[in-house]
Amino acid sequence: MTVIKPKYKDISLKKRSFRDAKFNPDWLVPESQLPTTEIIDLLDWIPNSGFLTAQELEITEAPAVEIVANIKNKKWTALEVTLSFCHRATIAHQLSNCLTEIFFDEAIETAKRLDEYQAKTGETIGPFHGLPISLKDNFNVKGQATTIGMVNFCFNPNTFDEDSTLVANLRELGAVLYVKTNVPVAMMMPETTNHVWGTTLNPMNRLLSAGGSSGGEAALIKLKGSPFGIGSDIGGSIRIPASFQNLYALKPSFGRFPTFGTRSGLPGLESVNSVNGPLTNSIDDLEFYCKAVVDNEPWLHDAKCVEIPWRDVELPRKLNIAVLIDDGFVKPSPPIRRGMDLVVKALENDGHDVIEWNPTDHVRLAQIIGQFFVSDGGHHVLKETTETGEPLFPYMENYGSSKDMKVSELWKLQSERTQLIKHYLDRWNNTSKLTKNGKPIDAIIMPATPFAGSPIGKFPTYVGYTSPFNVLDYSVGVFPVTRADRNIDKPDTVSENYNEIDTQVWKDYNADESHGGAVALQLVGRRFQEEKVIAMMKKVAELIDYSE
Amino acid sequence: MTVIKPKYKDISLKKRSFRDAKFNPDWLVPESQLPTTEIIDLLDWIPNSGFLTAQELEITEAPAVEIVANIKNKKWTALEVTLSFCHRATIAHQLSNCLTEIFFDEAIETAKRLDEYQAKTGETIGPFHGLPISLKDNFNVKGQATTIGMVNFCFNPNTFDEDSTLVANLRELGAVLYVKTNVPVAMMMPETTNHVWGTTLNPMNRLLSAGGSSGGEAALIKLKGSPFGIGSDIGGSIRIPASFQNLYALKPSFGRFPTFGTRSGLPGLESVNSVNGPLTNSIDDLEFYCKAVVDNEPWLHDAKCVEIPWRDVELPRKLNIAVLIDDGFVKPSPPIRRGMDLVVKALENDGHDVIEWNPTDHVRLAQIIGQFFVSDGGHHVLKETTETGEPLFPYMENYGSSKDMKVSELWKLQSERTQLIKHYLDRWNNTSKLTKNGKPIDAIIMPATPFAGSPIGKFPTYVGYTSPFNVLDYSVGVFPVTRADRNIDKPDTVSENYNEIDTQVWKDYNADESHGGAVALQLVGRRFQEEKVIAMMKKVAELIDYSE
Repeated sequence: MTVIKPKYKDISLKKRSFRDAKFNPDWLVPESQLPTTEIIDLLDWIPNSGFLTAQELEITEAPAVEIVANIKNKKWTALEVTLSFCHRATIAHQLSNCLTEIFFDEAIETAKRLDEYQAKTGETIGPFHGLPISLKDNFNVKGQATTIGMVNFCFNPNTFDEDSTLVANLRELGAVLYVKTNVPVAMMMPETTNHVWGTTLNPMNRLLSAGGSSGGEAALIKLKGSPFGIGSDIGGSIRIPASFQNLYALKPSFGRFPTFGTRSGLPGLESVNSVNGPLTNSIDDLEFYCKAVVDNEPWLHDAKCVEIPWRDVELPRKLNIAVLIDDGFVKPSPPIRRGMDLVVKALENDGHDVIEWNPTDHVRLAQIIGQFFVSDGGHHVLKETTETGEPLFPYMENYGSSKDMKVSELWKLQSERTQLIKHYLDRWNNTSKLTKNGKPIDAIIMPATPFAGSPIGKFPTYVGYTSPFNVLDYSVGVFPVTRADRNIDKPDTVSENYNEIDTQVWKDYNADESHGGAVALQLVGRRFQEEKVIAMMKKVAELIDYSE
Repeated sequence: MTVIKPKYKDISLKKRSFRDAKFNPDWLVPESQLPTTEIIDLLDWIPNSGFLTAQELEITEAPAVEIVANIKNKKWTALEVTLSFCHRATIAHQLSNCLTEIFFDEAIETAKRLDEYQAKTGETIGPFHGLPISLKDNFNVKGQATTIGMVNFCFNPNTFDEDSTLVANLRELGAVLYVKTNVPVAMMMPETTNHVWGTTLNPMNRLLSAGGSSGGEAALIKLKGSPFGIGSDIGGSIRIPASFQNLYALKPSFGRFPTFGTRSGLPGLESVNSVNGPLTNSIDDLEFYCKAVVDNEPWLHDAKCVEIPWRDVELPRKLNIAVLIDDGFVKPSPPIRRGMDLVVKALENDGHDVIEWNPTDHVRLAQIIGQFFVSDGGHHVLKETTETGEPLFPYMENYGSSKDMKVSELWKLQSERTQLIKHYLDRWNNTSKLTKNGKPIDAIIMPATPFAGSPIGKFPTYVGYTSPFNVLDYSVGVFPVTRADRNIDKPDTVSENYNEIDTQVWKDYNADESHGGAVALQLVGRRFQEEKVIAMMKKVAELIDYSE
């Protein structure tokens, strides 16, 4: 007997309709009143739309540190805060298509319990008491599905019985969980699109991609439908969307934040490890999140976490900063180069020692990580996509064309990587010979991507500005600098290019199309130097004083 | 033209003769004056032999902490200390066959330089100033070969141009490097034997194996031909020989001590990582070594080291200790069970809370690590052994009979491991429900092997008492308890056994043959809890007050 399975489109339709039924109709903006397609920049739309009350606006515009303070001092209840974010997240979703699982009812129940606890004891239960936190859709939440953009995971399982370790920790710390957010298929594309939920748009400029894979998070947070949220990164998946939405973000080293019990697109891959970290609208919130989670001693709950407490950092008055403007493989487009220029000048004006960083081995590191990703011959991805017949996006063609590598070959690649990361560390140490004070650099500042947001479908198959730092396992932050400006960031008239991808990026750059796109950069610190990376981003943020 | 390569025996002979030519003839005990074969226990032979001067004896019997203090306070020069250990190491080698590369000349030059430095500056250059440290023959030392017991590595390369990172660090700290020590083929056997250097014997009982793979180290240190030395461990290779020689030892978690630039028997394997750590005659020396190396900030020199400083530990007055006597796969022989009993009683008498530990998943963890070892289908080992025609020892048959696994299969094994190590951590945490004070256990105490030294060639193909902790990456110490005694440790008359290996171990046990063999145990701490493991071993050592 042949069982005819529903096609992938039927499954997806069913899944979407289940989600859509969970929205509160009172919170949905009528279709006719949504912004028309000529409106490209959506950043001011929600505050000006009149759909949120003054209190809802006040709450959702506040940084997380203020929200928790105002719950603690009883200005706001956890319930008021939760309802405000559920409302705003609903509209943010209508604008950007950022949400996957929504569980407002459960969130409201949690908020009420927290309020009762506070009323009864006079205490809050932890640093996140009453704070809604959004989660990328690779975190398992008890009672919810985790699809990671794959049709075969829509109802398989229907719901998870256990929280991911991080999720359980966030609950312990008082967080209110209410939504999960969109990702690309298996989280292995630099743009957030899939056959279940569709494409997430960039609220800074709807012609541009939100980036991926934590694109749903980045769009939601940018629209302040979440005070902050958690993404994951194995090749750039926190940093690319954070940089495309001008957010602060942290890709930590593996082992500082718990990763157990999350759904992976490449389960069992350990040659390089996925990490998770926060995306926020404010640098203070970034620090607030990290300190709270690490203070909770994640190494007691996750076997792969490392026993490094959150440490106080005192920066030297003068930092030694290496800058890398162009990796020699893809030349950054004009707005990104302008962003680099702004930061370099600000640092120099403030007396910091700025030297040049050479991208030695970056291309090889990016190649190696690419080989790690498909070292199972795309086995897992193909198994899951074939079952429902969902086609592979062009971004993932190599998952359909790779060989299930032999372990003896993998060992050779891993041996090479061991050499490369030692060489990189030595180069870092040896900058002591190039700096004025004879100390090695404190950080590298460089682009996170070579473009200020990419038009949908046009991200080249190159993540070499981010992925080397996954192989190196360094702590890397993202910080906003400015926005692309059609009047300043004129296209290059260059004729010489590094290669085909570079040529394509150069051709694709269109000052009008990119207008308003985010210009954010990476600040790269040594491995396990998350505290210092945040402290340095704070310093840089003060110097460039960017706000939207 | 066919090039006829020399056979493996020719290469080995040549290599051994090169080494033998480096011994100082004045230090060699004439063959006729070496102990006769009836003398089984060699521990007192050197001190009583009259071949060492009173000062040489005083120096070589002293713990490392005393040696460095006496160099600092100018009681002894670095040169005197170095000469004494070179002399004693020579004799220790004659008794146990423990040395591979010897470089006394270089050591003497180093010692002279250190003495000059001290004379000139009044300072020592670091905590190891003038201290000879022996190295397992997987560490590269500038100007020396690294054979790891493989004929094809005898002259390939002839010498290394660079020190392993740890070796370079030891030099910086003032150590005098003078010898490297024997290991089994590719360091992948539990007994130290190979076709280059032959078998290392156990100085406590020459009928017993020194264990492996750090067997050369253990024999040398036991005979006090080295104040302490460094071994490595990927499945038990520090702990097995340390326990067979009643030494103190530490198998740290991966990342606390630098491993870069060592020669591996399975290069590129990362599913489980080899670590290195000290083997010592005294618990204070163990701590002295660890603190000095970690204080030197190895994470600045090794890309895989973790930024965890050496921490002060204050133990609770009453420890919570879980004990595991029998893993349900191989029942420990009578002397080991007696050792466990001694320790449990001592702990209970001192008021500590002792509970039982269940070996859940131990056998599966040991199976998985076994699969990791041969996941390249023995590719590397076979390539190197085939080139010279050296045959595989029976211990390594599976390197000749395994399949070069596909990465998709490796990912499945790694995924399973991720679950198992989380489950183990949860079990550890959940002991809080079983202890009197409601806190989880501080350590597990258990056998390191199920026998008190094994007769040569009779170590069963099972390292399940040690290898699960490599998969778990826990900090594990070894400490001596007593010696096997033919008058007490009578064979079991048991008939029921767990399996064939267990039956074999039971049959092999012979109270006469094992007499005087070491009874040492493991103390298992959480991951990255090296300081606490050492502190707990110190406590236990006080309670049982063992000395030879």
